[in-house]
Amino acid sequence: MKVVITGGAGFIGRKLAQRILARGTLTGASGQAEAVTDLVLFDAVAPPDEELTDQRVRAVTGDITDAGLVAEVIDIHTDSVFHLAAVVSAGAEAEFDLGYQVNLDGTHNVLEAARAADGTPRVVFASSLAVYGGAVPDTVVDETPITPETSYGAQKVIGEFLITDYSRKGYIDGRAMRLPTIVVRPGKPNKAASGFASGIIREPLNGVDMVCPVTPESRMAIMSPRTVVECFMHMHELDSTRLGASRAILLSGFSVSMGDAAAAVQAVETNRTRGRITFEVDPQIQAIVDGWPKTTSSAQAADLGFPSDSNIGEVISAYIEDELG
Amino acid sequence: MKVVITGGAGFIGRKLAQRILARGTLTGASGQAEAVTDLVLFDAVAPPDEELTDQRVRAVTGDITDAGLVAEVIDIHTDSVFHLAAVVSAGAEAEFDLGYQVNLDGTHNVLEAARAADGTPRVVFASSLAVYGGAVPDTVVDETPITPETSYGAQKVIGEFLITDYSRKGYIDGRAMRLPTIVVRPGKPNKAASGFASGIIREPLNGVDMVCPVTPESRMAIMSPRTVVECFMHMHELDSTRLGASRAILLSGFSVSMGDAAAAVQAVETNRTRGRITFEVDPQIQAIVDGWPKTTSSAQAADLGFPSDSNIGEVISAYIEDELG
Repeated sequence: MKVVITGGAGFIGRKLAQRILARGTLTGASGQAEAVTDLVLFDAVAPPDEELTDQRVRAVTGDITDAGLVAEVIDIHTDSVFHLAAVVSAGAEAEFDLGYQVNLDGTHNVLEAARAADGTPRVVFASSLAVYGGAVPDTVVDETPITPETSYGAQKVIGEFLITDYSRKGYIDGRAMRLPTIVVRPGKPNKAASGFASGIIREPLNGVDMVCPVTPESRMAIMSPRTVVECFMHMHELDSTRLGASRAILLSGFSVSMGDAAAAVQAVETNRTRGRITFEVDPQIQAIVDGWPKTTSSAQAADLGFPSDSNIGEVISAYIEDELG
Repeated sequence: MKVVITGGAGFIGRKLAQRILARGTLTGASGQAEAVTDLVLFDAVAPPDEELTDQRVRAVTGDITDAGLVAEVIDIHTDSVFHLAAVVSAGAEAEFDLGYQVNLDGTHNVLEAARAADGTPRVVFASSLAVYGGAVPDTVVDETPITPETSYGAQKVIGEFLITDYSRKGYIDGRAMRLPTIVVRPGKPNKAASGFASGIIREPLNGVDMVCPVTPESRMAIMSPRTVVECFMHMHELDSTRLGASRAILLSGFSVSMGDAAAAVQAVETNRTRGRITFEVDPQIQAIVDGWPKTTSSAQAADLGFPSDSNIGEVISAYIEDELG
């Protein structure tokens, strides 16, 4: 079967590709496990060469706002699409037009291409906690109203409604899930306000001192890369009639305080030289983070068997194994 | 000031135009009442000639999916837009592509054109109770979750989120309101499932016998044409900071049973020969109507001073006065 991952050169897209290749099969049109024979990593940038050594995988580099190209990549033989490509939060806020072009028009292109395929492709859409904004409760639950207060959040909400409507019409078999903040992201620090949540683990393990810009008591809803990849797999494999009329669900994050994260970094078994962690509150970042939910708890995701994290020590150990090994 | 009404040749669009012309002013960029000097009725069809006798009004006939044309109609001098144009519920369900082109891309065109205007145009968007679907409560309130189960409903929700996001960015000063079923619509019966709610009043007053396809106990949330026009005016004039982060609000409908509507038609003072009303349940229509809210009640709309109807007899008298004059 043919599988396309948009955003396939990104951090999560590449991990998902590795997981699909390792497993070798996904549920196909027959409703049975079928061998994945063609896995396309579609992205604006090329993935590292090491992602392309498997003969089942190939990369297509191009623009998701190009409907013709998207229709070539997601052609009539496509069985499954994981739609992860997006201009991220700060980017969509800074570049309004680009955000709508990629996150709205691009998503529409993906859905139209999937609709034109033979059969009814499964389409798994990466949504975000950014659909909640303003005075969100400490714990976001299934019933929490959708109130985006960023362009990124609005675009993700719109994507969810499109996924649901195209599915209701039988054009695709779509599913959308709202992801918590992914921790630990490897690589350089980025400018995301949530960047410190990865940095507080990543930097000390790289021997770099870390200044955490929020208090040790500050809590966030996080999900590890391993768990989010399992959520994508689980969402794809699920019988979508179990989702109900709305094809969008919330995922349960793991609530961790920055103080606990710092302690766990010091406690984890490793012979790496660790950088020091200090806390120096940046009032602007503290204010942003104080406005975020402290955790997300989805009874629906639990009922449907979605995994979540439960131990920051394990998240850190997995990071060491996967990224620093 | 320049005002554009999309869907300006339609039933509500024309009534709104008459109301604006009669009043003569709207709140302009200065925050003060300004004379309306250029009122454009933009629609896919031309309005009747009698709507164009006032020298302040003109018609532009064309396609709202044509971004270039929309930018010509809503040019840089535009102060206010009332965006009513839409492919309606049954149409958007039957013609999926057309629905998205008009209701999503068309709305996007309107917002982009308004964004390009000098100043920050007020944009009033006609949304719908179709944003609620599935197992809706008997009384829809401000907190009722948004769960569209039609393409029309999905498109209206998406429009609301676009209105809110463009407003948050300061590109427009947008406002959206969810309209109940408008009763009494003049003219021929249409194929809308809700058509009987107008028909039960309109047909007997035209001397035509009416077979109501639902039980006398069946209730609906309705709003009269006069009241909906006042809601559009009120929404335009409102200081939008009073709306909060979301620019979309629910309007309060008037709950009326078909039995009460039938009795009021018989009781209203008129020397017209009345047709007979009988009730013959069509199980398919009854099932649809049973799934609709019995009423809508918005505390927010009440706080903000939006009018609602309260007397079916008055609604009928107004219909006689306005349409059967």
